[in-house]
Amino acid sequence: MKTINIMVGGPASEIPDLAQYTSGEISWIGVDRGAKRLLDRGIIPTIAMGDFDSLSKEELTYLKTKVADVLEFPAEKDETDTEIGLSWAMEQKPDKIRIFGATGGRLDHLLANLMMLTKPKFLSAVPVVEMIDRYNYIKMYTPGSYTIEKLPDKKYVAFTTMRDVTGLTLKGFAYPLENATYPVGSALSSNEFVGQMGEFSFKSGMILLTQSND
Amino acid sequence: MKTINIMVGGPASEIPDLAQYTSGEISWIGVDRGAKRLLDRGIIPTIAMGDFDSLSKEELTYLKTKVADVLEFPAEKDETDTEIGLSWAMEQKPDKIRIFGATGGRLDHLLANLMMLTKPKFLSAVPVVEMIDRYNYIKMYTPGSYTIEKLPDKKYVAFTTMRDVTGLTLKGFAYPLENATYPVGSALSSNEFVGQMGEFSFKSGMILLTQSND
Repeated sequence: MKTINIMVGGPASEIPDLAQYTSGEISWIGVDRGAKRLLDRGIIPTIAMGDFDSLSKEELTYLKTKVADVLEFPAEKDETDTEIGLSWAMEQKPDKIRIFGATGGRLDHLLANLMMLTKPKFLSAVPVVEMIDRYNYIKMYTPGSYTIEKLPDKKYVAFTTMRDVTGLTLKGFAYPLENATYPVGSALSSNEFVGQMGEFSFKSGMILLTQSND
Repeated sequence: MKTINIMVGGPASEIPDLAQYTSGEISWIGVDRGAKRLLDRGIIPTIAMGDFDSLSKEELTYLKTKVADVLEFPAEKDETDTEIGLSWAMEQKPDKIRIFGATGGRLDHLLANLMMLTKPKFLSAVPVVEMIDRYNYIKMYTPGSYTIEKLPDKKYVAFTTMRDVTGLTLKGFAYPLENATYPVGSALSSNEFVGQMGEFSFKSGMILLTQSND
């Protein structure tokens, strides 16, 4: 199981304890300010990338002494920093990609990070990408049937429709559904697992699933 | 100018300094844990509402000694807490409604709070509602022509499409647009005002505008 962890530049207050995400065959990508944050936490990323305009000249010089591969790109570009990090990660053909630092702070960054996964160019990334912060575990789904496990530290589960959704069936949750239809932008919030596992399926659309805590 | 401020229950770390939002003809609504937060900050809301399952029995008893009007409703309901607060606020026919505590923490709550304003039942609320946190000023727009002012403490402006958008024109921003079309879920992030004012217009769809800071 080859996993790539990406740290982007959102506020440190939203970053979870990383200890549980550092075991196994893991490599780290540090994106922009996220690269410095990794060094601050004693993690040396395989590669750092970004326009680095949030770092001082001294910080960038220090970064280059620590990280073997530093990829600088211009501040004005068509892709977001997270997209550039995700594209690089996808090329390594990992089994899983976790993104940290994508939430909190600027809401336009959060929305861009969520919307990114609805773009055709990242369709192949959808099954392998997770976003994780202190309060939330976030995963996007394309049509199909899924069995998911309750995360031990999370109470709530929610299904938000990122495209018009048809045929949505939920089993094993406090509020089950059978073959339901919801337009894009429906926030089916504050559901809960009945037991340890839940099943859901849908025929068309896209769903953003979150497991979260207050 | 009659303004109603609503405090809902998101993490305290995301709440801005409220001093600048307490002058003039202001009344406060405290929703669920938000009611306690207002009391903690020395603000007595006109009304408190919620299922209050996040408060202890003692906290709720104390709340009732301080707030003249406390409206309790069941935890299982079709509307979110924020929706109930917003519905009550709309009935008072205010010129402006500011919502605090709607961001940070649970992402399903944030998404539900944003999506709420795309619902037909809240269409009349769209022009008067703002959401405000430490990093972001958030406002939803329906088709039309608008002139907006740069907020003095915010650097970035972003346009996120909450419905398919046609005829989008942006003037007075670093990245202008002319009669552009974007599907739902496009995140036009990290734009900036050129001067103090910007203009935008669009023919169909819905747009979420954010002004934000790192």
